[in-house]
Parts: sequence; structure tokens; C-alpha cells
Amino acid sequence: MSIKIAVDAMGGDFAPEEIVKGSVLAAREYKIPVLLVGQVDKINAELAKYDITGLEIEIIKADEVIEMCEAPGSAIRRKKDASIVVAVDQVSKGNAQALVAAGSTGAAMAASLFGLGRLPGISRPAIAVVLPTMDKPVVLLDAGANSECEPENLYQFAIMGSAFSSKVIGVDNPRVGILNIGGESGKGNTLAQDTYKLFTSRENSTLNFVGNVEGREMFSGICDVVVCDGFVGNVTLKVTEGVASMIIRQFKESLYSSLLAKIGAWIAKPALMKLRKKTDYNEYGGALLLGIKGTCVISHGSSKAIAIKNAIKVAKESVEKDVNGKISRLYESNKL
Amino acid sequence: MSIKIAVDAMGGDFAPEEIVKGSVLAAREYKIPVLLVGQVDKINAELAKYDITGLEIEIIKADEVIEMCEAPGSAIRRKKDASIVVAVDQVSKGNAQALVAAGSTGAAMAASLFGLGRLPGISRPAIAVVLPTMDKPVVLLDAGANSECEPENLYQFAIMGSAFSSKVIGVDNPRVGILNIGGESGKGNTLAQDTYKLFTSRENSTLNFVGNVEGREMFSGICDVVVCDGFVGNVTLKVTEGVASMIIRQFKESLYSSLLAKIGAWIAKPALMKLRKKTDYNEYGGALLLGIKGTCVISHGSSKAIAIKNAIKVAKESVEKDVNGKISRLYESNKL
Repeated sequence: MSIKIAVDAMGGDFAPEEIVKGSVLAAREYKIPVLLVGQVDKINAELAKYDITGLEIEIIKADEVIEMCEAPGSAIRRKKDASIVVAVDQVSKGNAQALVAAGSTGAAMAASLFGLGRLPGISRPAIAVVLPTMDKPVVLLDAGANSECEPENLYQFAIMGSAFSSKVIGVDNPRVGILNIGGESGKGNTLAQDTYKLFTSRENSTLNFVGNVEGREMFSGICDVVVCDGFVGNVTLKVTEGVASMIIRQFKESLYSSLLAKIGAWIAKPALMKLRKKTDYNEYGGALLLGIKGTCVISHGSSKAIAIKNAIKVAKESVEKDVNGKISRLYESNKL
Repeated sequence: MSIKIAVDAMGGDFAPEEIVKGSVLAAREYKIPVLLVGQVDKINAELAKYDITGLEIEIIKADEVIEMCEAPGSAIRRKKDASIVVAVDQVSKGNAQALVAAGSTGAAMAASLFGLGRLPGISRPAIAVVLPTMDKPVVLLDAGANSECEPENLYQFAIMGSAFSSKVIGVDNPRVGILNIGGESGKGNTLAQDTYKLFTSRENSTLNFVGNVEGREMFSGICDVVVCDGFVGNVTLKVTEGVASMIIRQFKESLYSSLLAKIGAWIAKPALMKLRKKTDYNEYGGALLLGIKGTCVISHGSSKAIAIKNAIKVAKESVEKDVNGKISRLYESNKL
């Protein structure tokens, strides 16, 4: 089956310019059909900038746009013709196999949940993000879908994260840790303590639970999947971005602080570009909403074309490698 | 009044070597009397390495040590002669005005709380840490003392953080934000939402409340004090350390990846050293336990001499600038 990706062309700080550009890049590089969903005139105006001969790019009309400031639940009910709603609809009808969205995260979540439904056994879908470490990348979830969670939710996040890590990142028997403020079993808040108890009580679990993981260790690569509630996960994600961008900016300033430093920086440039690539979230493409009947990649609101291109790649791989099938199988052998 | 600092010479990964060394450096640089608390022979063996002529360094005997793995509460009750307990005792008796400890954070907290008591109006003391931003440093609290909190606790943290920011960092009318996962009032978990309501309901508050702050913005310097529960705060602190150390390591590896990069790095070295200093937690010295009747600086377990020296400086400044007096005055004008 050829995989088609529906892209919300109207969502994100740089829509539709960068979204359309990223979609063209992806259609060309991955030879994949893309459905651009949104206002036809605006999309056509952007497409006119590129030579799209031979690319499978189709426009699906959707006249409304959900703004960042709108309450997601009521917005998706009110605006039936919003680009994100129509894009989800393409997946639900089977016209596309996955969805990429860079606008309101809440709207993308609500539209996906409402339009596609949950996978069996998953009570709360979660946002999974991939963070760089000293070793292999780590999957963190929930990165913001559920501010308040129960231990059972974190257990389901572990199932979903393990499926993603093994299928998309290619980790064999992924190690799962609970994000906590100490390594010992009694550490942390009630949720962390009770989740630890739940994990250790599951003797026949096929999940590779390795215990508590602290925020610092997470980046040294001691586990492959880290679970936490969506409040802590979202703070973690944004602190990671904030610290990385602060250090890189200060680093640049240091290298421009004197003539000598400038010369050094110029000589070391190729090495520095490699580092920049490693820490640039545009390279990671986006977060995956896991636990829904379908595939939805949520990109950063400030995504540029390269991020959209990479998000389309993640969506394609998730479908190809059947992450949802793996989640269902892991759920069956690890039911609570 | 001359300020004397009691230092737990036995706590931390590099005790007593680095603790004694840091204390000697501080006694010399700040001309401040230091009481080294711990096992006399070991401390003397370390002191013998330095020329301490003219320095006011005194040894206070304490034969027991509380290990990192011990449960803090029972350990401080059982080991009356532990270095941390005796060090707190020096402050409680008035022999010293502040305390520096690099061992078990839990033990330092429990001993301080038990030995010194809480400031009036403060129901939960909190750990305040200073994080670098693109602008002035930001004070984050609670960084780990209380895993579970109520809105009233976060309100008190705001009082304590404001006092610290204005007195020690020198910020005029410090801006206080709630660490949250979105800027709008309805965002976040129940604690964040209720805390927002509590802050905005205080019409006569002299605190400079600026709303919700996201993990990313925190590092761009948009506020001076950030409050959250101790679980989220500790995760934030450790993620900050983890990301910083990962980037700096990868950065070093990049600069050693080729001869050209090595030459560039060598030329840019002075600029890079400046950056390293900025992101090295040893430069910040330690976290302050705020809300107790006394001053207690808790250093990182892996503190080297320079961190201990800086921790002694922070302790000295907190006493000199009367942070506790400022907390009490702010509490009086912002009582709930």
C-alpha cells in the first residue's frame, strides 16, 4: 500500500509558506504522496514557487483555520471546515494514512481523538517526543497531552513508548524508566511512587522496566523510554529546548567576542555545524500522538520547512513500521 | 557582627579533601571565619596541605557521618554526633551564623528544620536554586524540598524567592512567574491553575506577579523568580544540568573530531573558557534552603573546592543582606 500523508497546510507560525515548502521537499525526497489541506488559493500561490512536476501533491480544500488562542474542544466542534479537522477526516476516510500538523497542539489532539478514536486498551493517548542523549535518542512521554495522570496511564505510556522505540528508533527490548527525583523506590511524589509499585508488581510484564531515572541521567542515555505525566513531560521538553538554545546562543556570542575567537570559530565551522544539527529540533520533525487509531505527528509551532519534511518522514515510518500494531500486541501481553 | 560559617566537612562525593580546600580558599578570599565540622584527624590531614597562617579556621569535632543512602529523618535522630547535626547545632547556639553542606540534601534539610525551626508564616521551607539565563539569573523554587504542594506553599515560595532575588541578586521588584505548560490562565495541572487564581486574587499584594512562565522562556530571562512544586522544580534543575553537560560534552567532541577543528578550538580557547564558566554549576555554589530560622546553603554532592568557596560566599551574603528579615517583612505585607 502506498502511504499518503495529509498535511495541515494552515497551522504553525510560518504557515502556509514553510509547510508547503517542507511538503514539497518530502514529496520529492521520499517519493511520497502528500495531501495539502487548507485554503486553495494560498496553497497554490506557495506551490507556484516550486517545480513540482512528477510529485504527487494534491490540494484538499478547507476554508477555516483554528487559531492558537482558541479552546481546542469547542473550536473543532464549531469549525467543521477547519484545516486540521478536514486533514483528520482524510485519515479517517482512508484517503491518507497519517497526518502532520504544526498548529495548535490541543486542536490536533482533540481533532485526532474525536475523528479517529483510541486504540483498544489505551485510556489516554500521549504525546511522545524524541530527545537527543549522549548515546541513542530517548523517547519521552507524555510530553503534554495529560496534565494529570494515574499510574495506569504511565503504564500505558510505557507500552506505547516501547513500541515506538523498538519500531521507529530500532531499539531492541527498550529500557523503560520513570522520570523521578531520585533513584530509590520510595522517591518522588505519589504518582511516581505508585507507578513504581505498579511496574514492579507486574512479574510477567514483557516491558523492560529499569526503575527510576533522574532528569540528569536521562541525557546520558541510560534508558530508551522515559514516562511521566504530561505536565512534568512538557516542562522537561521545554526546559531542554530552553537550555539548549541558551547555551548555543551564548556560545555564538563567545565566538564573536574577539577577533581571535572569530578566527577559531571560522576554522572549526564544519565541526560546529554538525553539533548544531544534532541539537536543532527542526531535525527531529515532531512529536507523535500515540494511542489513537491512526498516525498523527504534531510539529513545533515554529517549524520551518526542514522540520515539516522530517515530520512527514516520521509519519511515513510510523505507518510503514506499524507502530500501532506493535502497541496493540504489547498491550495484549501486558494487560493490567 | 562578624559572620562565621559552619561547614559540614564530611559531606559530599569529594569530602573532606575538596570541602576543606574550598573552605581555606573562602577564609582567605573573603576574610571570613570558618568552622570545619567533622572528624578531627581527617580535617587536620587536609588542612596540613595549606598555609593557613592568619586564617580564622576552627575545627569542631563530630565523629559520625550520615551517608547518602540513609533515610534523613531517622538518621539525624539516631546520629546525634553526625557532622551535619553538629554543624546545625553551631548555628542554633549562635557560634555560627550560617551553614554550608554538600552531603545528603535530605539530611541537611531535616537537620536544619529540626534544629533551627521555620520562619513565622512559612509552612514549608523550600530549596532555591539560581539558574543562568540569557539575561540576569533566575531563582527557581522549590527545587526539591516538597514533592507535593498546595497553592499556599507556592505563594510562600514567591515571597521567599522575591526576598532572595532582591537582596542577593540585587533585582529591584523581582518579577514572579508560575512554572507552567502554557501562558494562559487556564493552563496546566490543578496546582498551577489554583496557584494562578490565588496570585491574581491578591489585589494588595506587593509581589510582582507576571503570570505563567514556560520552561523555554525561563531561560530567556523574562522573570526573576519562578515557583513550582519540588518535584517539577527538581526535574527542571536536573534536566538543566543534564542538557548543559550533554551539549558541552558533544561540543568538545566536535572540536576534537578533526585537526582543523582542534586548531580552531585552540585559537578560540579563551572565549570557550568564559562560556564554560558561565554554565558550570560549581560557579553558583549551591542551593539555599529558604524559610528556616537561619541560613543553610546546600551544595551539589559532586562539589569541588570552587563550589564550596562560592557556597560560603552565598551563605555570607545571605546573612549580611538579611534575606530572612526581608522574607519576614514581605510575609507581613502579603499574608493570606
